[in-house]
Amino acid sequence: MEKKIILDCHKSIIPYIHHTPVLSSTFINELTNSKIFFKCENFQRMGAFKMRGATNAILQLGNFQREKGVVTHSSGNFAQALSLAAKSLGVKAFIVMPNNAPKVKIEAVKGYGGIVTLCEPNIVDREATARNVSTSTGATFIHPSNDLDVIIGNATACLELLEEYPNLEIVVAPVGGGGLIAGTALSTHYFRKDCKVIGAEPSSVDDAYRSLKSGKIEKNETTNTIADGLKTQLGTINFPIIQQYINDIITVEENEIINAMRMIYERLKIVVEPSSAVALAAVLKNENDFRNKNVGIILSGGNVDLSKLPF
Amino acid sequence: MEKKIILDCHKSIIPYIHHTPVLSSTFINELTNSKIFFKCENFQRMGAFKMRGATNAILQLGNFQREKGVVTHSSGNFAQALSLAAKSLGVKAFIVMPNNAPKVKIEAVKGYGGIVTLCEPNIVDREATARNVSTSTGATFIHPSNDLDVIIGNATACLELLEEYPNLEIVVAPVGGGGLIAGTALSTHYFRKDCKVIGAEPSSVDDAYRSLKSGKIEKNETTNTIADGLKTQLGTINFPIIQQYINDIITVEENEIINAMRMIYERLKIVVEPSSAVALAAVLKNENDFRNKNVGIILSGGNVDLSKLPF
Repeated sequence: MEKKIILDCHKSIIPYIHHTPVLSSTFINELTNSKIFFKCENFQRMGAFKMRGATNAILQLGNFQREKGVVTHSSGNFAQALSLAAKSLGVKAFIVMPNNAPKVKIEAVKGYGGIVTLCEPNIVDREATARNVSTSTGATFIHPSNDLDVIIGNATACLELLEEYPNLEIVVAPVGGGGLIAGTALSTHYFRKDCKVIGAEPSSVDDAYRSLKSGKIEKNETTNTIADGLKTQLGTINFPIIQQYINDIITVEENEIINAMRMIYERLKIVVEPSSAVALAAVLKNENDFRNKNVGIILSGGNVDLSKLPF
Repeated sequence: MEKKIILDCHKSIIPYIHHTPVLSSTFINELTNSKIFFKCENFQRMGAFKMRGATNAILQLGNFQREKGVVTHSSGNFAQALSLAAKSLGVKAFIVMPNNAPKVKIEAVKGYGGIVTLCEPNIVDREATARNVSTSTGATFIHPSNDLDVIIGNATACLELLEEYPNLEIVVAPVGGGGLIAGTALSTHYFRKDCKVIGAEPSSVDDAYRSLKSGKIEKNETTNTIADGLKTQLGTINFPIIQQYINDIITVEENEIINAMRMIYERLKIVVEPSSAVALAAVLKNENDFRNKNVGIILSGGNVDLSKLPF
């Protein structure tokens, strides 16, 4: 049944998203003794896979809800994704952003038509402000990663990859809030059961790695990583999916992320955000696990401050 | 007849090159009030369109010549292109490079199998050294841009673009040594006569712009541009083609090149070298010439030193 839900979701979001290309590099294949297929969600509309989940979440709403709009709290890609998806569907998007968010990010959200409410830069005030906006406007709250419709939307990236490359034996995706890896795991489970799914996580924000080991949701103690999209915490909706369907999580160090990011720029000639490089870093680190395998990597996005590249 | 030559060339080089993708950006289209189709030769093998001309030049040689190898002088993309093309075809490539060339470039050439001879960093010694290598080895000299087989090979980038987007009204390509713009002009002339061709050149190395005005090959007085691939001079083989078939050359300033380059990174999410950005800079500068038009831009390559990005 979930198989049909993902396929139906894909069909319904197709008019609002890009079918992103898959790239390869002879150099990286020879280096890793594997065949890696990079699913380029950096080429997605607004520059990240989050466009998929945001679009699906709005499409699942009834007309009455759509009239009232949607609300989320995010300082990152989901803020832009929900704004653009809402605009495409003629729906209002209220976006709660911390008052210390970079001005360019706030402007980008406004550029996509999002209605911004600033809040104090802590999770308690973010959630409270989002609740207030929801109460006063009637807008439906949509969580950036801990929402089943968002997860199913995200699953369509891996679905497209598996449709194009049915011989994949392992798919690797970065783990932040858990929305991408959960969707990826659902797609491999329903469309290619014998394909493994590996999460890749910066070791400095390894809540998912520790949660898998302990069997309960662990908290990050720092947010000290260049992979700014991966600082967020697992949630109660995506964690059970991750527990059930993914095979392992590989953690990587900051210098490994930077090296992988540089390799993607130099060899694939594409612009990705640091979070996207975490999956390649995991493959480079645990080369033996991937040797002679057909490997899919989900490159999550390309929204990066070019003046702050780490090389 | 030339039409058939270009088509035959394309057929013969296909096994050795990538058919590169064409990308667009809604943002850039809205900004320029035009539809721009970017032909991404940064995704070409070894990272630049030069792979096309180098491959064709070697394929045109007889068996006796191929046994002796090929030789060129280049510190840039053609050195790598000829090395890789020669390797793919089982031919030796002798590459004359200035002794002040960055070590990474020399290593890249060697990595593709090129046999490097260093020379003094001036054109007189470059040419003399190449002649000496040719005499002592019997290798055939192949000029990076002033060679008809190279020009015809380069023409296949625009051919692919016109096959995929037959409605293009203008194609813009950067002008350096003249090999790319000459090939581009041949392809538009033979496959889409009513499509204009515009060259784009940094104003600090505007030898082609001045040569078009004066009717004879003018020399650059400085090589002071970030677009390091465009410092070279027009030649006697490509200049007549340029004179006959291109409509105009637009010159752009350094800050305009950097702005266009940043826009390509931010909006198309791809890595290009500064030379590639010159064509978009020309469109942004002379917006009125391109308004409401279907415009093709040849992005020449993506080999850039990431530690020296101008932003």
